[in-house]
Amino acid sequence: MNIITISREFGSGGRELGKRLADLLSYDYYDKEIIFAIAENKGMDGEYVEKVLSNHGWMNYPLTFRSTLSTPSVNLHIQLLLEQRKVMKEIALFGNNCIFVGRSADVILQEYHPFNVFVCADMHSKVKRCMERADKDEKLTEKELIYKIKGIDKSRINTREMIGGGTWGERLNYHLTVNTSGWRIKELAAAVKDYHAAFLGRTK
Amino acid sequence: MNIITISREFGSGGRELGKRLADLLSYDYYDKEIIFAIAENKGMDGEYVEKVLSNHGWMNYPLTFRSTLSTPSVNLHIQLLLEQRKVMKEIALFGNNCIFVGRSADVILQEYHPFNVFVCADMHSKVKRCMERADKDEKLTEKELIYKIKGIDKSRINTREMIGGGTWGERLNYHLTVNTSGWRIKELAAAVKDYHAAFLGRTK
Repeated sequence: MNIITISREFGSGGRELGKRLADLLSYDYYDKEIIFAIAENKGMDGEYVEKVLSNHGWMNYPLTFRSTLSTPSVNLHIQLLLEQRKVMKEIALFGNNCIFVGRSADVILQEYHPFNVFVCADMHSKVKRCMERADKDEKLTEKELIYKIKGIDKSRINTREMIGGGTWGERLNYHLTVNTSGWRIKELAAAVKDYHAAFLGRTK
Repeated sequence: MNIITISREFGSGGRELGKRLADLLSYDYYDKEIIFAIAENKGMDGEYVEKVLSNHGWMNYPLTFRSTLSTPSVNLHIQLLLEQRKVMKEIALFGNNCIFVGRSADVILQEYHPFNVFVCADMHSKVKRCMERADKDEKLTEKELIYKIKGIDKSRINTREMIGGGTWGERLNYHLTVNTSGWRIKELAAAVKDYHAAFLGRTK
């Protein structure tokens, strides 16, 4: 079984890269599917699960305060992270080739030696991408988008810090770091597919 | 004309990757050749030029002190960096496809829109590589090698800080960051060559 994990800056096109790679390789693709599984297991609403898992505001407290922070929302967040880990391990045990986008899959599934990709892009490209893909009712200004992008990436750094396994985005935690600026993701996916094939075929 | 620049952690195999890429692509290869040209232009010994360009001890002074540091050795270092820039620009003007290893070529030649690669590896792989390639008279212990590797990379961070163009190793300054751990550089070079071909052929 081969696993590819995609970690990404918000707006860099990492999710699209993951989907296109899954299509090219005929691998199973997991992203929000994990949220739905957690929701079902816990008898909760999917949107609510996603909201709790994305809300890292409490992580901004200094570490020394965190151990005393056992409010219900913190407990729920930790419970859902543990359930997420369980769901992801069950998917891996199933044994199909698959791609995971986000959710610290590179750490959680490290026993399966996944091929770990980090996806980044310059801020201009990320803002442009977010604007092109925004819902009609979500018209943020460039300044608001930059604030949103930085905030979401900060929460990803925080989650990674909690889960462990090294700093989010730090080059040594990934086999490959690709900058999507100036690429069409469709063409980039083909290039990453070839690099991955060389990785699998390398002499060990 | 296509230019590829390779920036690298010491011991990661970046130089070998550059050489192998140059062979695969039939590109001109520049690394120490630049030192020899500087030495010739300045009527100096090549080894001495290399030593001055690699000696960044004075960069460790706080920035506020640096402007008052106009000792002869600092002046010489700056003069040689300027000569290096001149030599590199002359090579680029010559118009051949080429690969530059190190020397902040990604910044100095940015007007030519080079394809910029950063090469990293985990410390264990770097130590192993350095040990395998050490001269018979240079038998450093693992601890000494780690100290050396960290010191050289720190001097690269410092030089980049002086030259400008963003932080050394920061993912957004490169098109691709490759982790050589677990790869034979020969096989990796073929994979990077293919990625570069896709980059050149992408729809703009």
